[in-house]
Amino acid sequence: VQSRRTRATAGPEIERLIELLARLPGYGPRSARRAALHLLKKRDAVMRPLAGALTEAADRVRTCSICGNLDVIDPCGVCTDPARDDHSLCVVAEVGDLWALERSAAFTGHYHVLGGVLSALDGVRPEDLRLGGLLERIKREGITEVVLALAATVEGQTTAHYVADLLADALPDSGVQVTRLSHGVPVGGELDHLDDGTLQAALKSRR
Amino acid sequence: VQSRRTRATAGPEIERLIELLARLPGYGPRSARRAALHLLKKRDAVMRPLAGALTEAADRVRTCSICGNLDVIDPCGVCTDPARDDHSLCVVAEVGDLWALERSAAFTGHYHVLGGVLSALDGVRPEDLRLGGLLERIKREGITEVVLALAATVEGQTTAHYVADLLADALPDSGVQVTRLSHGVPVGGELDHLDDGTLQAALKSRR
Repeated sequence: VQSRRTRATAGPEIERLIELLARLPGYGPRSARRAALHLLKKRDAVMRPLAGALTEAADRVRTCSICGNLDVIDPCGVCTDPARDDHSLCVVAEVGDLWALERSAAFTGHYHVLGGVLSALDGVRPEDLRLGGLLERIKREGITEVVLALAATVEGQTTAHYVADLLADALPDSGVQVTRLSHGVPVGGELDHLDDGTLQAALKSRR
Repeated sequence: VQSRRTRATAGPEIERLIELLARLPGYGPRSARRAALHLLKKRDAVMRPLAGALTEAADRVRTCSICGNLDVIDPCGVCTDPARDDHSLCVVAEVGDLWALERSAAFTGHYHVLGGVLSALDGVRPEDLRLGGLLERIKREGITEVVLALAATVEGQTTAHYVADLLADALPDSGVQVTRLSHGVPVGGELDHLDDGTLQAALKSRR
């Protein structure tokens, strides 16, 4: 039985759309309603193309079996790019981190997406991360440098420690150099908006 | 020619999805990327159903030819609801306002959506609003009360004045009562967070 409140306003089709829009990150019921009205005003410019892009991406995008990136081809565009440095491997937590590094254009090697960070709170254990594949790749691909590009959070740094220990144990005397991103003042950042930890780190590793 | 930056990360399919998500209200490139990754993780629970709901709503939802509401039937569910008060008509600016009033369950009459408010800045003139249909409806449907439920902004109140004058001119001696929403302290609102205008209005119309 449909509630009067649903039926009397705009029908279950719109209610269903609003419910699903409300599941987008950063959206709630109110913003979802606003988005539904916005989309219904822009059916041909945004609404239908968005529906098509969602279906297309849901059908075609897959996880790269080598690095864990998302792409419509497997292995992905980064793994198959012949212009990239084959000896440098950057370990990231999530695909979004890989994209961020790619936008920065500061890294030209290959990536390895762990699929998360270790977290006692969220119950993420080492076996939940793509760590086995990482060791195999380092051996197989002749990697000489592993960059641990993990967040400067407790969980990110715990994961970085864990991976560094794992590499030291599994690949003794391999000569693989393990590095991390530097901590410091974000470029364009004002000092008085920074937390003490960042300022201490920036001072400690002053150049 | 695809830019290296696009191709090398996640392919044009994902870039297209991100571009379209970035056109949702409140979203920008960063939140759109986050949403794309979130959706790709929830393909069956959210992504495909959302694509379906967007297509369904884009194909089936239409504007009610009587009141301007959005629904899959025309006349809409509100206009055809026999349980509603046929003599009371509530004038709102947008469909979202109609939905808000329906959620409040405080009004049981019919609605008339103007499709906007008068605005010199945005170039919205009286002929851009659904005003002709309003006069016709009031005469045809034997309306005895018109509630002007327009925003307490300069533009909303300008529009309310305009509609009230229009009704007085077009329907002299008709006995149609024109009312407006009261101004005052929002229920649950603390006094010291309110602007002076609201406090003055609340004091002036104290009961």
